[in-house]
Amino acid sequence: MSVEIQNLQDLIEKLRAFAEERDWEQFHSPKNLSMALSAEVAEIVEHFQWLTEEQSFELAPDKLAKIKEEIGDVQIYLARLADKLGINLLEAAQEKLNKNAAKYPIDKAKGNAKKYTEME
Amino acid sequence: MSVEIQNLQDLIEKLRAFAEERDWEQFHSPKNLSMALSAEVAEIVEHFQWLTEEQSFELAPDKLAKIKEEIGDVQIYLARLADKLGINLLEAAQEKLNKNAAKYPIDKAKGNAKKYTEME
Amino acid sequence: MSVEIQNLQDLIEKLRAFAEERDWEQFHSPKNLSMALSAEVAEIVEHFQWLTEEQSFELAPDKLAKIKEEIGDVQIYLARLADKLGINLLEAAQEKLNKNAAKYPIDKAKGNAKKYTEME
Amino acid sequence: MSVEIQNLQDLIEKLRAFAEERDWEQFHSPKNLSMALSAEVAEIVEHFQWLTEEQSFELAPDKLAKIKEEIGDVQIYLARLADKLGINLLEAAQEKLNKNAAKYPIDKAKGNAKKYTEME
Repeated sequence: MSVEIQNLQDLIEKLRAFAEERDWEQFHSPKNLSMALSAEVAEIVEHFQWLTEEQSFELAPDKLAKIKEEIGDVQIYLARLADKLGINLLEAAQEKLNKNAAKYPIDKAKGNAKKYTEME
Repeated sequence: MSVEIQNLQDLIEKLRAFAEERDWEQFHSPKNLSMALSAEVAEIVEHFQWLTEEQSFELAPDKLAKIKEEIGDVQIYLARLADKLGINLLEAAQEKLNKNAAKYPIDKAKGNAKKYTEME
Repeated sequence: MSVEIQNLQDLIEKLRAFAEERDWEQFHSPKNLSMALSAEVAEIVEHFQWLTEEQSFELAPDKLAKIKEEIGDVQIYLARLADKLGINLLEAAQEKLNKNAAKYPIDKAKGNAKKYTEME
Repeated sequence: MSVEIQNLQDLIEKLRAFAEERDWEQFHSPKNLSMALSAEVAEIVEHFQWLTEEQSFELAPDKLAKIKEEIGDVQIYLARLADKLGINLLEAAQEKLNKNAAKYPIDKAKGNAKKYTEME
């Protein structure tokens, strides 16, 4: 009896139900969720740490499958965190994208590798 | 001239265009993106590190606004990473949610705080 | 035939020999080591993510033993990274401690919880 | 009136005094310290995220100076965390190094890049 996820808002609602049904809301403070998020991201990093950039594009199917799972975990905790803080996740991404577009206009950014490597 | 993001797939496509227009694809290896993702998550963690769990629910508006920005960044890099690896982000979350549902059935998980704190 | 470590400098030298003997220097670029460092730290975070602050002081012996291993890993990668960059680890800590002492004089910092939670 | 740090144990004691004098012990639960540690490590990662491995060896002096500061921060929080948990930092590193030596004997590990990239 698998659940189907239609979109980001649907994911957020399904995750809320999932935590409530298991009495897990008590663990999901924003502080704790930020830690879980960072631990899951590190599992992605771990897969790439000894690979060259080139190798990181050419993953074996089993490795890619594992990374897909970790990426699913990160999306899940990110959605939970946003939900707990009352933040609209898509809106947050949209606002940041527009901010970046204003900060790095195409004509200035293009081909400017040096600038990019100094971005932080 | 702000961009509007309709859904996760739309975000992925807009981010692809954004990077291409600026010649930034050259920096976006999966390895590098995993690092950027982890650095952005840490900026969220930093906001919560000295707060109690209770305080992490009651953020001042300016702090919440900053965290919204960081959350936007995390969603952006996560979408970019999934795109570069050919991973469907929503599907990855859906598969993980179904896996978790099978692993933690409601009747066993409910109220089982001890079990939860040992989950990793 | 266990190795004994006398001090931080001794650790750095033993680690250098360890990597050289195994032909692993090729993997230990500062970039890669920063990733490994962050992945190891996340394993510590993972142990604490669902615990309250109080619980984080009262760990069961087997959990404490695991965390000791992770802490050993973090110290190892930190020492390797400093070595590769020609940075004296103890000096780096000393300089930062003195900088913090100047930035947070005792009379101003004392009991100033609010200030502290805004530090980043 | 700068403080001089003789060795790792000395660092731990100076840090303990530093926190006590400022009434900051209240913030330094192992949970919180693990978060601070991960946030500081991410600041190192951030410096390397868009660099190639080669570039990560050839840092400009000002960038290297910044990384030295972050490395100092990581050593400081790692020492604080070990202290709070009653863990001997050098012993933890020594035990892990011996464990690794048993796990990866020289003759098997040498030149075995494939094996290494699968290590996690």
